Amino acid sequence: MLGEIKGLNEECGIFGVYNHTQAAHMTYYGLHSLQHRGQEGAGIVVSDGQTLEQSKGHGLVTEVFDEDRLAQLPGGSAIGHVRYSTAGEKSYENIQPLLFHSHTGSLSVAHNGNLVNATKLRSELEDEGSIFQTTSDTEVIAHLIRKGGKKPRHERIKASLKQLEGAFAIVMLLEDQLIAALDSRGMRPLSLGKVGDSYVVASETCAFDVVGAEYVREIQPGEYLVIDQDGLHSSTFADKQDRSICTMEYVYFARPDSQVDGENIHSSRKRLGKKLADIAPVEADVVTGVPDSSISAAIGYAEQANIPYELGLIKNRYVGRTFIQPSQEMRERGVRMKLSPVRKIVEGKRVVMVDDSIVRGTTSRRIVSMLKEAGAKEVHVRISSPPIKHPCFYGIDTSTSSELIAANNSIEEIREEIGADSISFLPTDEMVDAIGRDDSSPNCGHCLACFTGNYPTDIYENSVLPHEKDQLVKEVVNQGANY
Amino acid sequence: MLGEIKGLNEECGIFGVYNHTQAAHMTYYGLHSLQHRGQEGAGIVVSDGQTLEQSKGHGLVTEVFDEDRLAQLPGGSAIGHVRYSTAGEKSYENIQPLLFHSHTGSLSVAHNGNLVNATKLRSELEDEGSIFQTTSDTEVIAHLIRKGGKKPRHERIKASLKQLEGAFAIVMLLEDQLIAALDSRGMRPLSLGKVGDSYVVASETCAFDVVGAEYVREIQPGEYLVIDQDGLHSSTFADKQDRSICTMEYVYFARPDSQVDGENIHSSRKRLGKKLADIAPVEADVVTGVPDSSISAAIGYAEQANIPYELGLIKNRYVGRTFIQPSQEMRERGVRMKLSPVRKIVEGKRVVMVDDSIVRGTTSRRIVSMLKEAGAKEVHVRISSPPIKHPCFYGIDTSTSSELIAANNSIEEIREEIGADSISFLPTDEMVDAIGRDDSSPNCGHCLACFTGNYPTDIYENSVLPHEKDQLVKEVVNQGANY
Amino acid sequence: MLGEIKGLNEECGIFGVYNHTQAAHMTYYGLHSLQHRGQEGAGIVVSDGQTLEQSKGHGLVTEVFDEDRLAQLPGGSAIGHVRYSTAGEKSYENIQPLLFHSHTGSLSVAHNGNLVNATKLRSELEDEGSIFQTTSDTEVIAHLIRKGGKKPRHERIKASLKQLEGAFAIVMLLEDQLIAALDSRGMRPLSLGKVGDSYVVASETCAFDVVGAEYVREIQPGEYLVIDQDGLHSSTFADKQDRSICTMEYVYFARPDSQVDGENIHSSRKRLGKKLADIAPVEADVVTGVPDSSISAAIGYAEQANIPYELGLIKNRYVGRTFIQPSQEMRERGVRMKLSPVRKIVEGKRVVMVDDSIVRGTTSRRIVSMLKEAGAKEVHVRISSPPIKHPCFYGIDTSTSSELIAANNSIEEIREEIGADSISFLPTDEMVDAIGRDDSSPNCGHCLACFTGNYPTDIYENSVLPHEKDQLVKEVVNQGANY
Amino acid sequence: MLGEIKGLNEECGIFGVYNHTQAAHMTYYGLHSLQHRGQEGAGIVVSDGQTLEQSKGHGLVTEVFDEDRLAQLPGGSAIGHVRYSTAGEKSYENIQPLLFHSHTGSLSVAHNGNLVNATKLRSELEDEGSIFQTTSDTEVIAHLIRKGGKKPRHERIKASLKQLEGAFAIVMLLEDQLIAALDSRGMRPLSLGKVGDSYVVASETCAFDVVGAEYVREIQPGEYLVIDQDGLHSSTFADKQDRSICTMEYVYFARPDSQVDGENIHSSRKRLGKKLADIAPVEADVVTGVPDSSISAAIGYAEQANIPYELGLIKNRYVGRTFIQPSQEMRERGVRMKLSPVRKIVEGKRVVMVDDSIVRGTTSRRIVSMLKEAGAKEVHVRISSPPIKHPCFYGIDTSTSSELIAANNSIEEIREEIGADSISFLPTDEMVDAIGRDDSSPNCGHCLACFTGNYPTDIYENSVLPHEKDQLVKEVVNQGANY
Repeated sequence: MLGEIKGLNEECGIFGVYNHTQAAHMTYYGLHSLQHRGQEGAGIVVSDGQTLEQSKGHGLVTEVFDEDRLAQLPGGSAIGHVRYSTAGEKSYENIQPLLFHSHTGSLSVAHNGNLVNATKLRSELEDEGSIFQTTSDTEVIAHLIRKGGKKPRHERIKASLKQLEGAFAIVMLLEDQLIAALDSRGMRPLSLGKVGDSYVVASETCAFDVVGAEYVREIQPGEYLVIDQDGLHSSTFADKQDRSICTMEYVYFARPDSQVDGENIHSSRKRLGKKLADIAPVEADVVTGVPDSSISAAIGYAEQANIPYELGLIKNRYVGRTFIQPSQEMRERGVRMKLSPVRKIVEGKRVVMVDDSIVRGTTSRRIVSMLKEAGAKEVHVRISSPPIKHPCFYGIDTSTSSELIAANNSIEEIREEIGADSISFLPTDEMVDAIGRDDSSPNCGHCLACFTGNYPTDIYENSVLPHEKDQLVKEVVNQGANY
Repeated sequence: MLGEIKGLNEECGIFGVYNHTQAAHMTYYGLHSLQHRGQEGAGIVVSDGQTLEQSKGHGLVTEVFDEDRLAQLPGGSAIGHVRYSTAGEKSYENIQPLLFHSHTGSLSVAHNGNLVNATKLRSELEDEGSIFQTTSDTEVIAHLIRKGGKKPRHERIKASLKQLEGAFAIVMLLEDQLIAALDSRGMRPLSLGKVGDSYVVASETCAFDVVGAEYVREIQPGEYLVIDQDGLHSSTFADKQDRSICTMEYVYFARPDSQVDGENIHSSRKRLGKKLADIAPVEADVVTGVPDSSISAAIGYAEQANIPYELGLIKNRYVGRTFIQPSQEMRERGVRMKLSPVRKIVEGKRVVMVDDSIVRGTTSRRIVSMLKEAGAKEVHVRISSPPIKHPCFYGIDTSTSSELIAANNSIEEIREEIGADSISFLPTDEMVDAIGRDDSSPNCGHCLACFTGNYPTDIYENSVLPHEKDQLVKEVVNQGANY
Repeated sequence: MLGEIKGLNEECGIFGVYNHTQAAHMTYYGLHSLQHRGQEGAGIVVSDGQTLEQSKGHGLVTEVFDEDRLAQLPGGSAIGHVRYSTAGEKSYENIQPLLFHSHTGSLSVAHNGNLVNATKLRSELEDEGSIFQTTSDTEVIAHLIRKGGKKPRHERIKASLKQLEGAFAIVMLLEDQLIAALDSRGMRPLSLGKVGDSYVVASETCAFDVVGAEYVREIQPGEYLVIDQDGLHSSTFADKQDRSICTMEYVYFARPDSQVDGENIHSSRKRLGKKLADIAPVEADVVTGVPDSSISAAIGYAEQANIPYELGLIKNRYVGRTFIQPSQEMRERGVRMKLSPVRKIVEGKRVVMVDDSIVRGTTSRRIVSMLKEAGAKEVHVRISSPPIKHPCFYGIDTSTSSELIAANNSIEEIREEIGADSISFLPTDEMVDAIGRDDSSPNCGHCLACFTGNYPTDIYENSVLPHEKDQLVKEVVNQGANY
Repeated sequence: MLGEIKGLNEECGIFGVYNHTQAAHMTYYGLHSLQHRGQEGAGIVVSDGQTLEQSKGHGLVTEVFDEDRLAQLPGGSAIGHVRYSTAGEKSYENIQPLLFHSHTGSLSVAHNGNLVNATKLRSELEDEGSIFQTTSDTEVIAHLIRKGGKKPRHERIKASLKQLEGAFAIVMLLEDQLIAALDSRGMRPLSLGKVGDSYVVASETCAFDVVGAEYVREIQPGEYLVIDQDGLHSSTFADKQDRSICTMEYVYFARPDSQVDGENIHSSRKRLGKKLADIAPVEADVVTGVPDSSISAAIGYAEQANIPYELGLIKNRYVGRTFIQPSQEMRERGVRMKLSPVRKIVEGKRVVMVDDSIVRGTTSRRIVSMLKEAGAKEVHVRISSPPIKHPCFYGIDTSTSSELIAANNSIEEIREEIGADSISFLPTDEMVDAIGRDDSSPNCGHCLACFTGNYPTDIYENSVLPHEKDQLVKEVVNQGANY
């Protein structure tokens, strides 16, 4: 739902639990708390120690699973996945966790992130005789492992992970073990928690609160963590590099009640808003936020600027995935869908509209226009992050450069384009500072590629944006005709 | 969703539009904005001037209708209804609008409210030979009209409305006319709007914003408003009495962006919060609200008390109607469902938790307990309305007296029961004052029965609570056996 | 499915059981055996002695009901109904049994047949204040009973039945009684059976075999049979008239394993075929029937004529209700749907094609053409009933006169139209004789109206064909506009 | 449906069409006519020359496909598959045709039959790094092809087919070619037809009649037939061996209107019945068949024996896949499901009951018992094939030896077990002779393994019965734990 409004799409959320009598239920609740990270599909794989069973489907966690389906997933360990929504390829096969059986054992994998060398690895594997069933990066991992020959399995898995480049937080399930791993730059969040004698792993700590678990620590960049009946076994599959955790997790994606790498998101966002009030003050009557992701920043701005925070925009909570879009004509006549301005609040007022980011600019233009139609005298846009100028290759679907408004326009042009009376962004340094991770060097830990263009990994010739991947795989597949 | 948490259930929301090329679509969007008033079922009836067509179903507006179904509802006028969710009778027949055909014409009725003399009227009608198909009060209205003999139809309808006692906001559709009517005390909200040459009628003005309509005025107590191709024809079916609009609309039910009887709900609620800060201050570190209904009041409290407003509680937006409840055991182990505390925000803090009302007290107890488990040092509960001590017979499902915590406990006992460090309610006068309707006499316009026990109408011997009605009708039906 | 091919549609099948621990299951199996009488919808109403519960839906019995739904129908007595399929009105409300509740008791009604004075009765009832919810004749019966005032209920019911004209076999369920009734001419079949201490009533005796019941006797014309805990209570509601049972039940509708009024259908049909061989012999190589209804007659013809019976036509058993029809172009290119000729059987052969009846002639033309395309040298059509020249007003949807090929063409013209090398029909007397009911007077007991035009009842000005009724009710309803 | 009664299950039916403007529709109709060969699932893959698209699902062809789904399958060539029903593994992945994509092209495979060396091949492939997604034999074929290295594709495919042992009739689709292949013994039927400029391939010729195609010839044992825009290209992938076509296709599986290897099934069955009358005559009053598969043989018996053929048993046509089975208690009380005896026909009569085969004997015992309960004085069972004493490893699910009544009992014991007054089987030679294929040597072309135990192929140590395969694959998979 977030993504529909923003034009920003997160790849997914992952969850795992080991040694719990109700592993499938725990995973259900955990995934449910990660639902904001992906609404297209959800899946759970459980192990009862002998056999891996799977259940998955299109839609929300609550739509895919009911008591009957959970009852068919007995076992003490489980992993789960929620997948984001794109306009494109919606095939059932791509819903994770993927599950692979062979006469030497079973393996299930769930993955958050995007590999930059997936297309290359895939072609090589196919040339060696592998048959792929999905267009998902995740299947590449399984084939690498399968090809690993006679070496012990953890060696094979670690060798396979080492070949991957890009962002990946991974959970894997074997009959008797749960594995968590994170790319060598730690570009995605992945946390370890504990509830009773059970361990849990999740993309965000909000999942821990929901299942009653306590936070233990972050999975480290390059770490390979095996959880089995003897407890935790940590090793590395690659040298740890400078952490480059995705900044947009703090600014936009993560749930306000999560801690990402130890920092509470709501508090970070409120600090972003306060900082914004400091560096970009304005005479105004009310501050309003764009629900839901910028509310915290807006409250921070209002507190710092001492301007009342008001409900200038309201979001309909009941927008499902099958909403009938108003026709162009109806929209022009003022029929609103998800977001409406509150006339009584903004009429005749100077409004500060705080938002977290601008991608294509279309949403911002629409909101400014709504507020003005509802009678706002002035609309001052304040953005709690810098302009997004570069596409993301690591799993966040920010569109191509040509669509990014800040890639092609000056700030003044953006202001004009969206029709605001003034606009300000938070500079990169101020943003990193406000996010507040207590690293010694202020910039140390963040991937800022979408703001700065400095990509922490190589970008392969055939690196593709997440939303292009399905299409590309299909095209590549059908170009040749020499099965 | 609200009701699940609160134990308060609104009866429904109604919408009508006359003379619009896309009447069914407009009704779809209007009902969608009223979805918070009822999630059990939704229906639309349209007229193309000759014939009335109907479509309805269980679930949310977006679940019941898709483009195909709307395409089968051609015509220039329409009425619609969303129905609240109870544990009980879920029969398809009861989903409104009801539609009645005869060889002399068709009639469709949608109704928000509860009649106190419905059971009596129903028995009398059956004794005269009527066959009822639903357990809904609304069908009583149709039978009264049908029995009206050879008189002109508007006379018959008005005579029928006059026989009804209780709360009712009604829209009716005939082949060529739309009718709006409100009980003589105006116990429910019903507003008139205009978009282009079309008139719209809705339970709340948020529906006007959504369909691009302008607010015109309130339907008056006792008013009978006919809309046809010649415009508006207003008359009365009963003498207007002192207005007794439901106070809980302001405190809890209505959407924050609605104006009820001219007053913006968010602003009213913020004033309720400020007043609460004035009369019940407390030394504290953070203020938090219970999403969604008490957020406005909590922000008001925070602003007035100059304590930071923080996100101490978070609500999962993806809770659908088919959520799997955690087992008792899982709940005890800390598995949360819809509402979670944010540990990092409340840990070690003195927390003011603002809520709008307390019905049975179970939800409040649960929230206080959550906050304490998450580390809150103190929890001070502030309620932006008085204690609810009396059941409602007019359509709000507040449970019976025996379940109302304030009917049976002192305020100190309530505090103890819910485990708060302190608790305060807003007194009736202060509440009415803060709501802020500009009547000369402060108490003039409100039904305060649930707080004071002063019911504005007679309560018949066989008046029943809304949630008891289905059961009662079924029992009565099956007691005799002499069809 | 039969009807689709033939252009003949039966109204429905009814079933009732009293005093059986598994009344709903028994009704499920009984209705299932009557499925050939109607495939549009199915319903069951049960009584546990106190309350009547209902379940119904569109589709086949096996589609509408599963174990869960049957489990929600506890009780010792039940009635059920299967409804035929028309192109027209498919509203849920019209699926029977209808169920009516009031504060003096409940009543459920299921009906097979068609009333000729329904429209008149309905208008009169509406003028007296009744509100109809369906377009079904059956609801008229309930309103008549409800209007019956303070008289004892069986007097009221019998007085109501007396007002009905036309064909009707009815079962009714009260809290503590099951009622079976048949029109005064006995135009529809209705039989009584017994299984253990339970009584069953069904449209056809095949339902008795399926539920393990023994045949007891026919319900008599004008009979009003009450079954309760004291056993059977038979009386009459109208004077018994000469029986006029529908001949098409023998020729076409009933299942071959049923006995209708004591006569086995397969045996009757085989005799019809033998008689046909006697009066219309032909030199030929093979005899074939049109599956399923004319197989018995074809075997009879083959035996009598001493020509081998072969499978010249085959019907696909998996044709469901949602079959994709081949386009006109595909059909012309030889794409077959349900019925295919067997080339190896008919190629180069002189074929006798036995069918039971010809309505519009289109199906016969298609079959003859198929056989010739598959290489048949000659096709001799033999019909085991007379030409249908008149529409039926009693519940069999034979189309209007203008569509009946025999109403407008000589036999030679029919032969030419359908492309046969020869054609013969069985004369009325021979048919009645062959059917073999052992009445003293050969013609005594049959309605032969569709062959002879002699209707056993008055045909009211506003008598309508079954398939016109829904449309007509809708039109009448919407002509006036004076609800 | 057949299988439910008999205990015999066919593996599936396949269909392909090349160069037709409505390839998906043609495949739909073709599969529909092959529906008796499998009711669990159905799938279609089309190629538009560039891309292969797939649609498949559980259930009947008419349930899986509607116009919308067919509309999403554009293209001029297509293959399709219907899959048989087992109690076991019902995974979506196993529904055929399977479709494989790679960067060098796509391949789709549909297969009828069973490989005896599949488990061995699969293990070897996994050890070389292949990942299997299904438990289907068919996927083995794709992996063999994929591993084929750099050789030209048809060489790779033919080399792969050569490695397969057992029964297989296969159609494959590439972007621009359709391939049909048959195992070197021709154990399954596969025919070639032509309609206009298009070629069609089908398991049975009844599919040709349905789509308006003319029969061309059989696909030959060991043949590899490529169809492309230049027409037919026939070669062989293995040396042709003595044909061993499955005898049960003639006796039981195929549709009566099909020609299998040139012989019409109805005619063959009628000859089987006549032969049976010659060698096992009996004094009797009526002959009856068990619908549907033994009707032809029963008519043949009746004609030859000059005893009237009557409808002694009737089958309900509306038994869907979700039928509620009567409880044991209800069954004992005479509640019938699918098959009922016709009391009026058999009462007091000496009945010859002709059936095509006996597997476990339970169905025969039930039918004999039904007939006796319905009053048959004597029941003489006549089986138009020899006793089945050996399991089938080639795709027909005859159960294990321990369940085959004839594997463990003498004919007299069988008679006693099923309660017949007499029983006779048709000897192997007589059967082969009556089937009537005009080969010079009577036994030349048939697989008679289930009667004689002479298996035409090696039976590998790890050959498994079809119904055991899913289970076995799962077990093997989960035994090791060394992914």
